[in-house]
Amino acid sequence: MRHPQLNKNGELQHLLSIEGLPRDLLLHILDTAAGFVGVSDREVKKVPLLRGKSVFNLFFENSTRTRTTFEIAATRLSADVINLNINVSSANKGESLLDTIDNLAAMHADMFVVRHAQSGAPFLIARHVDAMHGPHVHVINAGDGRHAHPTQALLDAYTIRHYKRDFANLSVAIVGDILHSRVARSDIHALTTLGVAEVRVIGPRTLIPSGLTEMGVRVFHDMAQGLRGVDVIIMLRLQSERMRGALLPSAQEYFKNYGLNADKLALAQPDAIVMHPGPMNRGVEIDSPVADGGQSVILPQVTFGIAVRMAVMSILGSHPTP
Amino acid sequence: MRHPQLNKNGELQHLLSIEGLPRDLLLHILDTAAGFVGVSDREVKKVPLLRGKSVFNLFFENSTRTRTTFEIAATRLSADVINLNINVSSANKGESLLDTIDNLAAMHADMFVVRHAQSGAPFLIARHVDAMHGPHVHVINAGDGRHAHPTQALLDAYTIRHYKRDFANLSVAIVGDILHSRVARSDIHALTTLGVAEVRVIGPRTLIPSGLTEMGVRVFHDMAQGLRGVDVIIMLRLQSERMRGALLPSAQEYFKNYGLNADKLALAQPDAIVMHPGPMNRGVEIDSPVADGGQSVILPQVTFGIAVRMAVMSILGSHPTP
Amino acid sequence: MRHPQLNKNGELQHLLSIEGLPRDLLLHILDTAAGFVGVSDREVKKVPLLRGKSVFNLFFENSTRTRTTFEIAATRLSADVINLNINVSSANKGESLLDTIDNLAAMHADMFVVRHAQSGAPFLIARHVDAMHGPHVHVINAGDGRHAHPTQALLDAYTIRHYKRDFANLSVAIVGDILHSRVARSDIHALTTLGVAEVRVIGPRTLIPSGLTEMGVRVFHDMAQGLRGVDVIIMLRLQSERMRGALLPSAQEYFKNYGLNADKLALAQPDAIVMHPGPMNRGVEIDSPVADGGQSVILPQVTFGIAVRMAVMSILGSHPTP
Repeated sequence: MRHPQLNKNGELQHLLSIEGLPRDLLLHILDTAAGFVGVSDREVKKVPLLRGKSVFNLFFENSTRTRTTFEIAATRLSADVINLNINVSSANKGESLLDTIDNLAAMHADMFVVRHAQSGAPFLIARHVDAMHGPHVHVINAGDGRHAHPTQALLDAYTIRHYKRDFANLSVAIVGDILHSRVARSDIHALTTLGVAEVRVIGPRTLIPSGLTEMGVRVFHDMAQGLRGVDVIIMLRLQSERMRGALLPSAQEYFKNYGLNADKLALAQPDAIVMHPGPMNRGVEIDSPVADGGQSVILPQVTFGIAVRMAVMSILGSHPTP
Repeated sequence: MRHPQLNKNGELQHLLSIEGLPRDLLLHILDTAAGFVGVSDREVKKVPLLRGKSVFNLFFENSTRTRTTFEIAATRLSADVINLNINVSSANKGESLLDTIDNLAAMHADMFVVRHAQSGAPFLIARHVDAMHGPHVHVINAGDGRHAHPTQALLDAYTIRHYKRDFANLSVAIVGDILHSRVARSDIHALTTLGVAEVRVIGPRTLIPSGLTEMGVRVFHDMAQGLRGVDVIIMLRLQSERMRGALLPSAQEYFKNYGLNADKLALAQPDAIVMHPGPMNRGVEIDSPVADGGQSVILPQVTFGIAVRMAVMSILGSHPTP
Repeated sequence: MRHPQLNKNGELQHLLSIEGLPRDLLLHILDTAAGFVGVSDREVKKVPLLRGKSVFNLFFENSTRTRTTFEIAATRLSADVINLNINVSSANKGESLLDTIDNLAAMHADMFVVRHAQSGAPFLIARHVDAMHGPHVHVINAGDGRHAHPTQALLDAYTIRHYKRDFANLSVAIVGDILHSRVARSDIHALTTLGVAEVRVIGPRTLIPSGLTEMGVRVFHDMAQGLRGVDVIIMLRLQSERMRGALLPSAQEYFKNYGLNADKLALAQPDAIVMHPGPMNRGVEIDSPVADGGQSVILPQVTFGIAVRMAVMSILGSHPTP
């Protein structure tokens, strides 16, 4: 069976998940992104690669921040962007997800950027589009349930390569609520595919899924042990519903055990970088002096995220047109 | 008295209703639309006809789908589009409808696309604009109350002509809640003006208005009788408030009597086409195998809808500028 | 200490408040705006001054009207505009204001247009941007709490100069709820800086702040006395919460005492102009015959407001780029 993300030439047809993408393709995206980093620095921040293309931001789950990054990326490629916040729209009128997709495809959409609370929704859409509308329509997963967030993983990989040059020999720790995190899942797939020597996860027993050891990931419940000697620390956002839920005693207790402060950071390599997908809960999973400190690369992640999304969109948009 | 939609040269000044528009003008819009169907198929889906014009989507009633079709049409004509969802805005602050229009006109709006729950609101706006702001400002009715939805009727006419070539000799059935449907009203005016031989409506007594026979329309309450031998079937969306209301026993009962399934479709001409303005209630007014079947032209309607809206906007925009 | 709105060359770096801006700079903005009034009259209403720049409309307080004026101004300068309605976004997720700003700056924002219910928020943002992101990022205050609304004051000044040619020798009355009005505060600063001979405020004792006399403003509680002989009348919007609050007896009573009708208008100079920042409460602070009458310049204010905002944005955008 052909992989649902690749066309018959092995090119990227949709970006749905990091899982299953070959190393060369990930590197091709990162290399393409490197060429776009400069575009946002220019006086005129635009290239005409997607001029006259229609990109639809389909956000079934509200996320202004992620929507904005895709809107900016598409706009800087000169695409026409239509934002659809679907919870306030035809979903109310009882139209099915796939009927909505069919309608937008009939308007000659070129690309769907999909955020959905249900894991697998972008796959369902991509399979449907392939069957019904042909190879000129592309789907990008902008985060689905607890499943995947591939552009976040790509921008994390880009950031790591930018600061550490090479993936081999690195030790990377992902800290926090691994269980509910699509970022953690996609990061683990990206880092292992790209050849990172050691991927660690750190978190309380209630927030670590089973099966990670089989993926070659080392699991730590003690943060001091887990951080010792690492080159990269990826802090995860603690969702507020977890703080109030049964899985955790309190935000204060969480910060004490798993929040990154200067003392804990000192256990990592002296040149270790600190990352966070945002938005941050300062004082919960990360202390402000660390978030704003010299080892933090949290804002460069955002900058690189635009370039990575431009890269993904331009690669998809270079494929067959109607 | 001059017709409120036409200027003194008989050109389209506003598109408010199909009622009262001459046959030649309808055909001119359809012919213009034919030239735009290809634009959305191009690699660069844009023409510069409305470059630098300001189009305001004024949606006093929420409809993401219709708003999107106008936004895409305007964008592909290179206009600048501003979306205003007025229920969350100055309407809250108690400003009157016409004060809002005056303000936007003072910002040099070129075109207003108006959706409003009140029948007649776009007429009121057009009359006010004519009196206060002059002939360079145009109004398009994107659906007003139970009254009219002229661009839907034009795209329906376009679709019928595309598949049936000629309007004469056709028998067209409109099925469902005729009473509350602005689509049905506008379709009846378009089809009779364009010379369709026979227009039928089919629905329960509670959902058929009086006076249709005088308009030359044949009324059926039995769907099997009504569908016999027709060339075109236009199914209407059943509003969910009807299903729960006193006018209908239940959605199941409605589907049994007036839902289009394969058996009922077999009563029409073998090459009959099935249309629906969307969004569909699958299993209520239409069965999924019919909606997705070989006689359905529901998605082509959407595609033609973009071209028809581009045609209307480009015709309006070709008139005098300030 | 350097003024936070000006760079070291005395150029406008941010537009935060009229207070503290030199007269020459105000006149430079008005002169620049005069050049833009014609752009909105053209067939193609666009100039390429901000092409490829990213302008973010950050509205922490809902105002479709003001947001629209900035969106149109930026679009006519060919900028890319991103609208963020922050009350429905990451503010919900508990991200701090400055983290939001940092993220958008990391996406290479060029300009932030900020509306906020808290007085001082745009200053806070500008100071942060100066410290963290450098001189190529600009902030425009689109209204903050009760504090300032500088673009409104500039368009008011533009309108007065347009109709009265010169600021000297004029008597200008501002009428209504001065206490809660950022428009009144900014207007007073603009008019006194521009050399208006006499600035009066008129309103009930409960809605006039102390300290105005020290600013050279004459305070009147009797409207007939206050209007006598003035050249310009600026009516303020009465917020609906005031009408229901303890500060005023009723809307009817307010209209009787401080609403502008034809009789009261007759007390001013025969060629006096009537202004209002909108949206109007007809029948509360202003009578419809006056709002729509020959002395009203309320709609020209809106037109000039686009040109003034284009002027401010183009002046800011002409400064150093990354």
